[in-house]
Order: sequence, then structure tokens, then C-alpha cells
Amino acid sequence: MPLTPQQIAEIDAQRAQPQTTLRATAHGMEAHLYTAYPVLDHGFVRVVDYMGDDAAICQAARVSYGKGTKSVQNDEGLIRYLMRHWHSTPFEMCEIKLHVKLPVFVARQWIRHRTANVNEYSARYSILDREFYIPAPDALNAQSQVNNQGRGDLLEGEEADRVLKYLRDDAMRCYDHYEEMISDEGQQGLARELARMNLPANIYTQWYWKVDLHNLLHFLRLRADSHAQYEIRVYAEEICKLVADWVPFAYRAFEDYRMGGAQLSATALDCVRRMLKGEEVTQENSGMSKGEWREFEGVIGGNS
Amino acid sequence: MPLTPQQIAEIDAQRAQPQTTLRATAHGMEAHLYTAYPVLDHGFVRVVDYMGDDAAICQAARVSYGKGTKSVQNDEGLIRYLMRHWHSTPFEMCEIKLHVKLPVFVARQWIRHRTANVNEYSARYSILDREFYIPAPDALNAQSQVNNQGRGDLLEGEEADRVLKYLRDDAMRCYDHYEEMISDEGQQGLARELARMNLPANIYTQWYWKVDLHNLLHFLRLRADSHAQYEIRVYAEEICKLVADWVPFAYRAFEDYRMGGAQLSATALDCVRRMLKGEEVTQENSGMSKGEWREFEGVIGGNS
Amino acid sequence: MPLTPQQIAEIDAQRAQPQTTLRATAHGMEAHLYTAYPVLDHGFVRVVDYMGDDAAICQAARVSYGKGTKSVQNDEGLIRYLMRHWHSTPFEMCEIKLHVKLPVFVARQWIRHRTANVNEYSARYSILDREFYIPAPDALNAQSQVNNQGRGDLLEGEEADRVLKYLRDDAMRCYDHYEEMISDEGQQGLARELARMNLPANIYTQWYWKVDLHNLLHFLRLRADSHAQYEIRVYAEEICKLVADWVPFAYRAFEDYRMGGAQLSATALDCVRRMLKGEEVTQENSGMSKGEWREFEGVIGGNS
Amino acid sequence: MPLTPQQIAEIDAQRAQPQTTLRATAHGMEAHLYTAYPVLDHGFVRVVDYMGDDAAICQAARVSYGKGTKSVQNDEGLIRYLMRHWHSTPFEMCEIKLHVKLPVFVARQWIRHRTANVNEYSARYSILDREFYIPAPDALNAQSQVNNQGRGDLLEGEEADRVLKYLRDDAMRCYDHYEEMISDEGQQGLARELARMNLPANIYTQWYWKVDLHNLLHFLRLRADSHAQYEIRVYAEEICKLVADWVPFAYRAFEDYRMGGAQLSATALDCVRRMLKGEEVTQENSGMSKGEWREFEGVIGGNS
Repeated sequence: MPLTPQQIAEIDAQRAQPQTTLRATAHGMEAHLYTAYPVLDHGFVRVVDYMGDDAAICQAARVSYGKGTKSVQNDEGLIRYLMRHWHSTPFEMCEIKLHVKLPVFVARQWIRHRTANVNEYSARYSILDREFYIPAPDALNAQSQVNNQGRGDLLEGEEADRVLKYLRDDAMRCYDHYEEMISDEGQQGLARELARMNLPANIYTQWYWKVDLHNLLHFLRLRADSHAQYEIRVYAEEICKLVADWVPFAYRAFEDYRMGGAQLSATALDCVRRMLKGEEVTQENSGMSKGEWREFEGVIGGNS
Repeated sequence: MPLTPQQIAEIDAQRAQPQTTLRATAHGMEAHLYTAYPVLDHGFVRVVDYMGDDAAICQAARVSYGKGTKSVQNDEGLIRYLMRHWHSTPFEMCEIKLHVKLPVFVARQWIRHRTANVNEYSARYSILDREFYIPAPDALNAQSQVNNQGRGDLLEGEEADRVLKYLRDDAMRCYDHYEEMISDEGQQGLARELARMNLPANIYTQWYWKVDLHNLLHFLRLRADSHAQYEIRVYAEEICKLVADWVPFAYRAFEDYRMGGAQLSATALDCVRRMLKGEEVTQENSGMSKGEWREFEGVIGGNS
Repeated sequence: MPLTPQQIAEIDAQRAQPQTTLRATAHGMEAHLYTAYPVLDHGFVRVVDYMGDDAAICQAARVSYGKGTKSVQNDEGLIRYLMRHWHSTPFEMCEIKLHVKLPVFVARQWIRHRTANVNEYSARYSILDREFYIPAPDALNAQSQVNNQGRGDLLEGEEADRVLKYLRDDAMRCYDHYEEMISDEGQQGLARELARMNLPANIYTQWYWKVDLHNLLHFLRLRADSHAQYEIRVYAEEICKLVADWVPFAYRAFEDYRMGGAQLSATALDCVRRMLKGEEVTQENSGMSKGEWREFEGVIGGNS
Repeated sequence: MPLTPQQIAEIDAQRAQPQTTLRATAHGMEAHLYTAYPVLDHGFVRVVDYMGDDAAICQAARVSYGKGTKSVQNDEGLIRYLMRHWHSTPFEMCEIKLHVKLPVFVARQWIRHRTANVNEYSARYSILDREFYIPAPDALNAQSQVNNQGRGDLLEGEEADRVLKYLRDDAMRCYDHYEEMISDEGQQGLARELARMNLPANIYTQWYWKVDLHNLLHFLRLRADSHAQYEIRVYAEEICKLVADWVPFAYRAFEDYRMGGAQLSATALDCVRRMLKGEEVTQENSGMSKGEWREFEGVIGGNS
């Protein structure tokens, strides 16, 4: 269970104090505010604050594009138009602040998205808790044989047992020694900023992460994708649900144009045109490499 | 008067619809929300949305620095500490969205601050209004004789009259021709994206500008400074008043450490130490250039 | 002619001083260095410095992805893979610094790309030259009837003459008054930071603009596109030629995957799949709006 | 020793191939190019590429501020002026690319500086080496009693021995199990992206890090500071030496105005003025908190 009774009490207290505001308010999001949604074995995602809604995206777009946009199009149509034509600035007018608890190796991937504001728990100042990510049996995969950065079949039997034992035992032992080293009972006690180096990358950390909607959608496109590592993807998928309730028009457009869509190269478009004219197009006469052709077949669903 | 009756009606409508929210709410800011505060002859600044408050800054800092910060220090003390030690990320946890109407030459200075989100009125899509900044008599200065980028005494008499006449007449004539060129009565009508090039830089534009508190304070430090051009400074000063009501602890710390403070060089600090020991320090034995010494004397109030 | 004899002499001097360096050197770019390529009637683009080459992109990618990438793929294949899969960081490892002279209304579009470093000529400090963009007859278009932000047919006859006369005369008159206002002969002379407001948006400015290759390609995708305004597109096209000689592998991949490619939505991909199976797909049964269908037909070359 | 014979051979090869270029070339930097300077027990810093020099900073400033800057001031004076008045854009015109090998817990601090380009070795794709940071005896400190994020006295005797034993043994055991888990001999072999989670934060990683000079100096001000953690400070200090040879004017100005200087608050400036007038100022009548007064005394060297 990812939350202590004290944390649950804090969240309940936050949720019990409605305020009056004149700001744009997204009712779908208010229902989620502060609630910690569990992810992995000890992690969570919760919305701490947000700014704007679907209407705020349109409001900003209409400042740019003037009166024409007001009469002709409804909000959803305008948002779809903006998404389709890669207009990014109106989506930047919405902002979200999340509190996330996550394993350090996931945090290291996540932080590569630089266009966000972050305040992370500091292990220089404070003592980390004894909480480590241990994969569930259905997330314990072998190295992929095809893809250098992918996973293959599930590990089974003794091998799976041994891996889980190593992960658990090493984490516990490293944490025992971390505690022993920083203890000041009967000794000086090692500086926290040094002791933390003994902790493995499956230990949990937490941070406040604030990002605008445009950059959040970019993050979700990459991290909710099937090629993303499972342990970050589950966070992205949880965030997707929150965004769907926050800005439903923008989220649907994102699903259609980004998540479910595909970028075709000039060569690939040419192949599509030839195929639609009835030509037999194969990898050999496509102008694509084998790898590209395989991806292309995946996108158009085969031409057989 | 900067606002049309229609705009005033819209603002009144926005202000008349309070919502219930669970988000952090800054009561000092709610009172300003949507109200357009006049700046220059046709410009304004108004807050369209905001996220966070003083408590949100502390909340983020405490995620980083852990339990210690909770007991020892009150919120204002913590915020002063963060400001003094150049901690920027907790201030990034607050965000503000402004609607600003401003002359194009001011917009061109403003946009140099890149760490913000902007949606500007597009003169490619839409037709600009006939509104130009004409300086008031007490803002019509001569070129400074000392400072390449500064202003000297006020212009007077015939010279002032002639300048104002040029600014007004040229603006009107250029706008007349702009209207004539884009008109499609009895002619094709020039493309708006071309016609706009005939408009001088004192025409008004408007934008939505969204920025986090850290970057906003950086903007204010540079643009509310006495060396900033008057026409952007008046916007910065108006925003300062809004920030003071939004995050009063952060704003007071900003005034003390940034606006009212000064950066002393190693050489200048050495001079201060020598002077405090009773030594007679002059420009000649200070190790500073004449320009630096003049600035130094300004900061410490003279050593006579 | 966009360059003064003095500027040409400076460029010749810069080109005459080869240095020895151990840095990665792109021979295709060395041939362009410092040369000012004319754009529009008084503008230019010239490369002032660059960092990295195609090999530097691969080098950075191989730091990330390790030994596997070294053996299997050649440099061009790796670059194509990176571009296809939206890997942005290796392209960020190359940097370019341009000196650009351009009309103010073009600069205002350009600066919206915030992920670059800019030093612009300051009209607060210095006096602008009497140089204005006046469109050539084949760039003098009417407002588009279909597209709010587009151009239609060329203006002709008297209308074209009148537009050109307005643009020329207003520019000259505004500049005459600018000069008169700042003159200190027999008067105080208006501050430059004020006088500049009288100058129309077709006056030329100049800046140093430094950007990494990833962000440059993003800029080029939007601004070398047929929907971009002609006056910025000609700059983008000139820069495309320089990039093609600087990082030829990256540029070819960019042309194939970005400039010549297209993003298809989930709905559009579904239509392609249905059409390839022989189904008759029309706008009515496509699930797309009329606007989207029109764009889709443009991409796949029509299904008639 | 941080470098393998193979790496040394590569560096020698890179250093043996001088090219001819027309670009600005910093001779002080050419001498460092590619050389790996050792940091900590297995880390290093080496310059892989750079763009610009002191003259490039001035060149960009002169584009902005025009002809005036050319005659009056020499390059060093101009650079000092720019630094003193917080002009950031001319310093952004220089860029540096470093290859750094560093422990993961140092990398986690470093990456918080978001305004840089990074390509890190990927433990999803590749196998990490068995290299861990083990502090030297003179860097093995106790937790500070005064400062939550600082270090106190050196650990001694048995306590020091036990800490070093824990750090070494846990690292070796975790790495042994990492190797065992990913091995595909007689088993499937755990996916690398999972196995890496067993590795403690003192394991070494490496990256290419590219940043402009303005942001680099900001990084150095914070990380070469005496309050920075020792393990990142030694990297910053090594980089300082490289920058001093690359842009000597800018580096000297940085030392005087940033590293050796101090920001005084309005309250502190007022105290200085009162003290210079002969007034007895104490913490009680200073308007400062005890903490601020202690820092103030440190800056001005005490008033006793």
C-alpha cells in the first residue's frame, strides 16, 4: 500500500476545504485533485494543482487568430485543428502540477524531459525510506532477442525466483548498511550526502513535477507508447486518464493525431500512393530498408 | 480609455461567476482577477489565471528538504532563505497568466525573455485596430548625453510639439494606407500579412503571456529597474503590485534581496572591508575602473 | 545590394585567415563560412560559426546506445533511424550561429521560436539604417479568399502601383521624421528609444541567432513549408541549402521524414487500410470533417 | 586509472588530426581538446568541442549595442561591463561540449540544470562497467551537526573502515548479481532495463553534455561553490580551469563578479552604510535574523 495513514489523512483534509475562485475550473479534474493513484508496488501519481481547461486553449488561440475563429468553429473543432497543424502555444496555456512517487531508475528516464519544473526529495538533507520496487511476476521479462532495448518472454521458475531474491536481498542489505552508516549512536555517523550512494536504483524517491499541457502531451506520446519501458509507461498511462478528464477535447485530439497516428516518410507516402493505384509494392522496390519496411507494414496493416 | 464597453462587459461577466475549487487559492489575487489595469494611453495588464500561492512555494521546498524545514521555520522565514540562497525551483511552482495590451516596440523588448508561453494577436489572420502609443508630455525625453541607451531632460516647446505631431500624423497616415490597401472594395485587396508591414512600432498589439514566478521575478528585476525603458517599466510596476497581493512573502523577499539589494564584486567587497577598518579608499587605490567606482559609490552611498 | 563595401571587406578578411583546429570540421560548411547570401531586397543570411557534423550526431548517439550501434549500422543508417524514431538529443549536439539581416515583421515571427540564443541590433543604443523591404511585383499578393492567413492572386495594374507607392512613401517619410527627431542640431534631439517607434515594420534589423540542429530543423519544417509566409520562407530555404552542405545525412533524413512526410491520424490510417482492402472510402464514411478529408486527399494524392 | 588503453589510443588519434578551419579558434582550448582530465577515482572531464571565444562575446554584444561599443572600450572592459550588468545573451554565443564520466548520484544533481543538451550512456541498451566511486579517506566525512546538507569532521578508525568496507562489498555484490541476472548462459537472462535497478548510486555513468557559456557559468557558480557537495565540486573546479583557458576575459570577470562577489540585500546595504558612518550595528539593531547576520558578518569580514 503506497500511502501511510498520515498521508491519507492529509489528502482527506485537503479535499475537505473547497474554496471559491473566479478562475477557469475543470470539474472533471476537481474530482481527482490530491487523490493518490497507486502505480507499481509503492508509487503513486496525484494532481496537486492545475491551470486552465479546454476553453482556455481556445481562448488563447482566439487571441492569436482573431474574430474569425470565434464564429466558424466550435471548441472541439478548433482544438482538433490546432493539434493537426502542430500549433503548440495554445496548449502551453494549460499547466498541471503532479506529486509523483517513483523508483529512482524511472526518475532518471523521466527527468530527461527538461521542459518542466521539478522539486525532488533531497537525500542530501533527508533520510530515504526503506521502499524498493520489486517487479511483479508478470513484469519480470527476459532481455529481448530482437531489440537491444526491449523485453522478451517472462522469466519462469528458478530463474525468476533467483532474480527476485537478489533484488530483495540486495536492497535490504544495502539499506541496512545505509542506516548503520548514518546512525550517530556510538559513532560520528556518515554524512547523508555520502551514505545515499549505497542505495540501489530501485529505491523510491518523490517529486513535484509541473509542466504545461503541450510538453505533457509530448511526454505522454513517448512514455505511454508501447516501446517505452513498462515501469515508466504505467505512470504515463495513469496520467493519461487524468488528462482525459481534465481537457477532454484536447485529449481526444491527442489520441487521434498523436497516439493513434503515425508519421509517414516521403518514401512511405509514395508507396501508399503506388499501392492505391494497384501497384505491387515490396520491400525490394519500395526504396526502404528492411527495418523501415517492417515498420511501414506495421503501420498500414500489411498489403497482402 | 483602453477598454471598450464590450470588453468591460466580458470582464464583468467573468468576475460574476465564482466556482468552487479544491486548489490553492490566493485571496489577494482573486480580487484582481480579470480586471484590466490601464497602462500607458491604450494599454492594460490583467490577470487571466494563476496557480499556487506562498504556501505552494513552501510545500515544494519541503518536498525537497524534508521534515527539518517543517518544524524549524515559518513560511516567511523559509521563503526568505530560499530567495537569499538563489533556490529557484520552489518559485517555479507558481504560475501566472496575463493578458497584456502593449505597443509593438515594447513587445519586442518583452519577448526577449524566452522562458514564458506566449499567444500574440496575429496580424496575418486579423486586422489591427487604429491604436497607437503617443507619449504624454512628461515622457517625451531627449537622448541622454551620458548614456547611449538612456533619456535626458524633457523636450520642450516647439520641439516637443513637432515630435508629437510627427508621431500622430505618421501613425494616422500609415494606418489610413493600411486600411486602404487591405480593403476589397473595388479592388482585390492586399494580403493582411503584407499590409501590416506599413504600420509603425507604436501600434498596439496584445497577447496572453504565461510565466512561472521565478522567471517573472527575473523579468521584474530587469524591467521594473530604473534603467529599464519607461514604456516597459510601467508594465513591470503594475505587475509588481499584482504579485505583491498574490504571494506577499515572496514579493517582500524579492524586494529586499533583489530589487533593493546589490551584487558587489570581489574587488568591491574588499574595498568595503578596508573602509570599515578605517582606510581611506579612493578610485585610484580601489582596483576599480572609473565607471565601476561610480556605480560602487552609488551603492554604498558615498564614503565622504 | 545588401552588403556595403566595408562589410564585404570584413568578410573577405575573415575568410582569409584559416586556423588550425582539432575540432570536428565540416568541409561543406567551411566553404560557406562568413559569406552573406542575399535574401529579399536588402537582407542576407550568413554562417558565422558552427559546431559538429554528421559524425558528431552519431558519436553522441553511440554514447547513449553503446557498442551495438557501432558495428551494425553505418552513419547514414543510424541518422535515419534516429530521425524516424524522434530521437532529438543527438541532433542537439550540433550548433550553428547565423548572422541574419531581415525586416522587423519577419523578425517578429522568427523570434517566436524561443529555443535559440539571440543578439539583436538595438535601436535603443544605435540608429537604424534607411533600409526597408519593398515586395517585388511577383510577391505582391491579394488576401486569400479561402485562407485567413494566406495569399491569393498577384495584385496588378493600378492597385499594385498604389500599394508600392504607399509602402515606399510612408517608409521614407517615417524615416525622414525619425532622423529629424533624433537630430541634435539646433535642438535637444529625441531619445532613440522613443524615436524608433515611428518606424514601420518593413524596416530591416539584424541579429546573431544561434540554435542547435534539432531546433533548427523544427524551425525549418515550419518555416520552409509552403504554408509559411513567403518573406520568412525565403530565409528558411536559404538556410536549408547551408544545412544540406553542413550535415548532408541529417538533412536528407529530414527531407524524407519531415519535409516530404506527413503525420496521419488514427482515423486517416484506418481509411488508408480500408482503401488498400478495396473499400470505397468517401468523406462521408471516413469519420473526418470536410477540412480534414481535403487535407487527407492532398496527402495520399486523391482516391478517384 | 580512469582510461583504458583503447580510450587513450582514441584520444591520441583525435589529437593527431589537425584540420583547417575559418572559425573562431581559441588556442588555449585547443591544447585541452579531447584530453581526459581525471576526477575522483574513475571519472574524467574532457572537452569534445567548443564554439566561440572572448572575441565572439564582444562581436555579439556589438551587434546589439552598435558602433559606440567599438571605439570606447577594449574587449576585456566590454566583457566586464556585460558581466557586471547581467547581460546574458552575449555569453550564450559561446558553446562547449564535454564528455564526462561521473558517479550516478553526481549525475542526478548535475541534470537538475536543465538548460543543456545531454546524451547519456543507456543502461537499457548496454551493460554498465564494474566501476564504483569509493571515497578517499580524506573525503569520508561525518554528517554536519550544524547544517542538514553539509559534512562535518572526517570519519576515523574503525568507523571509517566499516563504511569503506560496506561501500565496496555492497557494490561488488550488487554488480555480481547484476552480471548473473543478465547472463544468458543456461538461462533466459533478465532484461537489462530491469537488471540495472540493482546497481547502487556510486556506479559510474557517462554522458556528452553541451551547454552555452552563460548557463555553464551559472552551473559553475553553484557547483564550484564551497557549499556544493565535494563530489560534484571537483568536476566544477576541473571545468573552471578549462574555461579559464578558453575565454580568459570572461572567466576573470566571472571570478570577480560572481565567484568572489556577494549579493547584499537592501537591509544589508543599509547596515553597511550605517557602519561606514560610524554607527555601531549589531544583529539586534540590524533588522536581520541571526542566520542572515551570521552570513553578513562572513561577507564583510566582521565588524568587531
